[in-house]
Amino acid sequence: MPASVPSSIPTIPTVPLTAEMRDSLRAIVGEKGLIEDEHGKQPFVTDWRGLTVGRAGAVVRPASTEEVSDVVRLCHEHGIAIVPQGGNTGLMAGATPWPSHTGIVLSLGRMNRVLGVDAVGYTMTVEAGCVLQTLQEIAADHDRFLPLSLGAQGSCMIGGNLSTNAGGVQVLRYGNARNLVLGLEVVLANGEVWDGLRALKKDNTGYDLKHLFMGAEGTLGIITKAVLKLWPAPKDVCTAWLAIRDPQAAVEILSEAHAASEDNVGSCEILSRAAVDLVLRHIPGTQDPIKADMPWYLLLEWASSRPRQDGADGMSEKMEQFLEGQLEAGRVLDAVIAQTVSQSRNMWRIRESMAEAHRAEGPGLSFDVSVAISKIPEFIDKGLKAVLDILPTIRPYPLGHIGDGNLHFSFMGPKGMDQQTLTQYKAAITRAVNDLVTSMGGSISAEHGIGMDKLDELSHYRSKTELDIMRTIKRALDPQNIMNPGKVLRL
Amino acid sequence: MPASVPSSIPTIPTVPLTAEMRDSLRAIVGEKGLIEDEHGKQPFVTDWRGLTVGRAGAVVRPASTEEVSDVVRLCHEHGIAIVPQGGNTGLMAGATPWPSHTGIVLSLGRMNRVLGVDAVGYTMTVEAGCVLQTLQEIAADHDRFLPLSLGAQGSCMIGGNLSTNAGGVQVLRYGNARNLVLGLEVVLANGEVWDGLRALKKDNTGYDLKHLFMGAEGTLGIITKAVLKLWPAPKDVCTAWLAIRDPQAAVEILSEAHAASEDNVGSCEILSRAAVDLVLRHIPGTQDPIKADMPWYLLLEWASSRPRQDGADGMSEKMEQFLEGQLEAGRVLDAVIAQTVSQSRNMWRIRESMAEAHRAEGPGLSFDVSVAISKIPEFIDKGLKAVLDILPTIRPYPLGHIGDGNLHFSFMGPKGMDQQTLTQYKAAITRAVNDLVTSMGGSISAEHGIGMDKLDELSHYRSKTELDIMRTIKRALDPQNIMNPGKVLRL
Repeated sequence: MPASVPSSIPTIPTVPLTAEMRDSLRAIVGEKGLIEDEHGKQPFVTDWRGLTVGRAGAVVRPASTEEVSDVVRLCHEHGIAIVPQGGNTGLMAGATPWPSHTGIVLSLGRMNRVLGVDAVGYTMTVEAGCVLQTLQEIAADHDRFLPLSLGAQGSCMIGGNLSTNAGGVQVLRYGNARNLVLGLEVVLANGEVWDGLRALKKDNTGYDLKHLFMGAEGTLGIITKAVLKLWPAPKDVCTAWLAIRDPQAAVEILSEAHAASEDNVGSCEILSRAAVDLVLRHIPGTQDPIKADMPWYLLLEWASSRPRQDGADGMSEKMEQFLEGQLEAGRVLDAVIAQTVSQSRNMWRIRESMAEAHRAEGPGLSFDVSVAISKIPEFIDKGLKAVLDILPTIRPYPLGHIGDGNLHFSFMGPKGMDQQTLTQYKAAITRAVNDLVTSMGGSISAEHGIGMDKLDELSHYRSKTELDIMRTIKRALDPQNIMNPGKVLRL
Repeated sequence: MPASVPSSIPTIPTVPLTAEMRDSLRAIVGEKGLIEDEHGKQPFVTDWRGLTVGRAGAVVRPASTEEVSDVVRLCHEHGIAIVPQGGNTGLMAGATPWPSHTGIVLSLGRMNRVLGVDAVGYTMTVEAGCVLQTLQEIAADHDRFLPLSLGAQGSCMIGGNLSTNAGGVQVLRYGNARNLVLGLEVVLANGEVWDGLRALKKDNTGYDLKHLFMGAEGTLGIITKAVLKLWPAPKDVCTAWLAIRDPQAAVEILSEAHAASEDNVGSCEILSRAAVDLVLRHIPGTQDPIKADMPWYLLLEWASSRPRQDGADGMSEKMEQFLEGQLEAGRVLDAVIAQTVSQSRNMWRIRESMAEAHRAEGPGLSFDVSVAISKIPEFIDKGLKAVLDILPTIRPYPLGHIGDGNLHFSFMGPKGMDQQTLTQYKAAITRAVNDLVTSMGGSISAEHGIGMDKLDELSHYRSKTELDIMRTIKRALDPQNIMNPGKVLRL
């Protein structure tokens, strides 16, 4: 187990699967829904990064809500622990079982039907195991837009996206995953099915249960279906690459971009020169949009659902006018507006290949933090100083979703330093970064969640009151602690 | 007690206030924070409509979170029930104590400070007792926009707006009250303070507690502070008043308005002729924008945060062009675009004075329901028929937020019929309307909540599983049932 996992292992149920229970599971999901051999289980007990490897008595793959319900009811009766799993692309080992796990991994991958698209009502009803990119494409086929967009979209599943309240590059305009949901169906810890699959824009009847299950990472119940909101498809999109004075300028540019674009800012991503260089070095075919060495860049995209009108100003005319003003104000040092789809794709590719480039470069550290947008410049200054004080030769390459106050505060290890040596600095650097984030009122996990990896960090930084409320809710809804035990919270 | 209240009164704590407890309360909030005489308590125990009159041992008016916390802790120790109250403008008697209530009304009105406005970060931090309109004005002073907007804005308080997840006329574009919130501070049932007052756009660290308190109507805790999101101030606003063919035309007009306005539809309110007449009759100074007798009207507002550019088409040119097309298509029968601020104000005043006009006219019934947008015409047809079958002389005046699928399906009693007689029909009419809503997959309370008035309806229409989850959460967070007991849920 790597050092990223908490040293002290949380207490989880350890009821083993008996031959009789295996027979019962097989009776529910059929032969092809049950994986018992070690080789077959391997991909389901290993996290996407390959850093964390757990165990499971079996992998169960139900094909319907009824089957999920029956499986959970059986586990509930016997006190068997369940790790729900979608595409298994999370970065916090939230869907990976602990090595001491004796229960099941419940994979939703066979529940992958789109149950309906209502283009007029701008909604889509889907099962949890649908792959995100498939849903994006189906929405586009109906001239609609499903805004959730992130690096793993080719393999992550919507159930996991919702359970972890995923973020991505469209949050600025459309909000996190939870904002895209009208209704949910959830299998509860006792196997009962909560049918909250409503397609209503407004419904003030009692407690909002759906927001409780989203972001709970499967610790309170298993999301099996969802009604997603859709939006008009973007018709007039303008992507620009800006060399900017500094992070403060980025905040100010964004602040003014809202009005200038008529509230059509889609994305606003900040990248340090080091981040851009990292990608240019490792990702074939990427090109520097502005061939000049400046310390900070902004990827700014405006998108309107109104097709360009003859004679009227489109997004790119508005952007051009805006950038002239920003150049005059000294916030923008140089800028280029994508003239072709391939120029725009190149800009996006630089942003989206960051994780791949990081992996190619070697060992590093990355922190997914957020602060109030206006505090980003201060955080970058102080954060870099704090980390460089601990390890002066570490190589920072900060980047992030500036409109969300969300930085991926990232570092490559010093040249030539191996993973093991870098790991020795990890605890101190993590503490320094998270202490700073917390002192500035920020979050230690802006979009990646808690899972297994940040269990100790959450306990450390959240107040006792806050942890008590969460534990009270967890115990009330899952008294046996069988739902994804040992994730998010220590009980 | 009027018949709008459930016939069977829920069980609530009945620990009376002793002289000693009164002294303790006085020691916490001071002489001017404690109201004990019947005359002084009257406005706090009577609901805004004057329909429901309850009782309270005392009205307590703390001036700070610390005082709220101390008061709640005292009540927690002695099992005294608490009814939290903001501006007391709710329509479901959610903030009104039951007649059997022996505890306190906790009014947040003295907690009315704005703690900060971050114009660059587009946020505002406020205390629960701030009046909504004051906050709108302060946002405007900073060239920012707080979109929450509803009839009671001159006296409702933000804490109540958030506790009830208020709706209003800007939901179409900006979402319900819960969508405007980044962080909350809440005093829990045991008096502890949950500090969730973060100004973060993204924070994936554990369960989302804020969404649980919003919409819970004070039954899980008392919201004391909030960080609100702000938007760019509208700079180019066009308000139009349309006589339209029928509700189906309204749905189609809205559908086409999105693109025509470049995604700048701010509000789209449908009003029946009877609704307009009701206001014109009772609200001095209001004028009929189109002096002709047509059955349905639409108040359509487009707003852009981009100032009008010389030469370029502004909102009103775009609106004019759009309305010409809609006239040709036969959906719009006649239309007028407000040329002055006072013309626009008049249009809005008609929409916003509806509750006041209803109260002036006499006894009536109103249902705050939602269905999928495309089902609104069908709902109006069937709903009117169902109600008129029960009471043929009742006077319908439907209106609503068409973009949210939310109708205020409203009726004045037959001419000359007194409240008591009308009340005899209420149960049958309510059942007919709510059965229809439910059969169409809708909500029996789109934005007004549950409070005291819809307690029985919620139990009737929600599934056992759903009610069980809500009760489990309520019992876990408020085991003594002292937080606004007998509201939202029967335990």
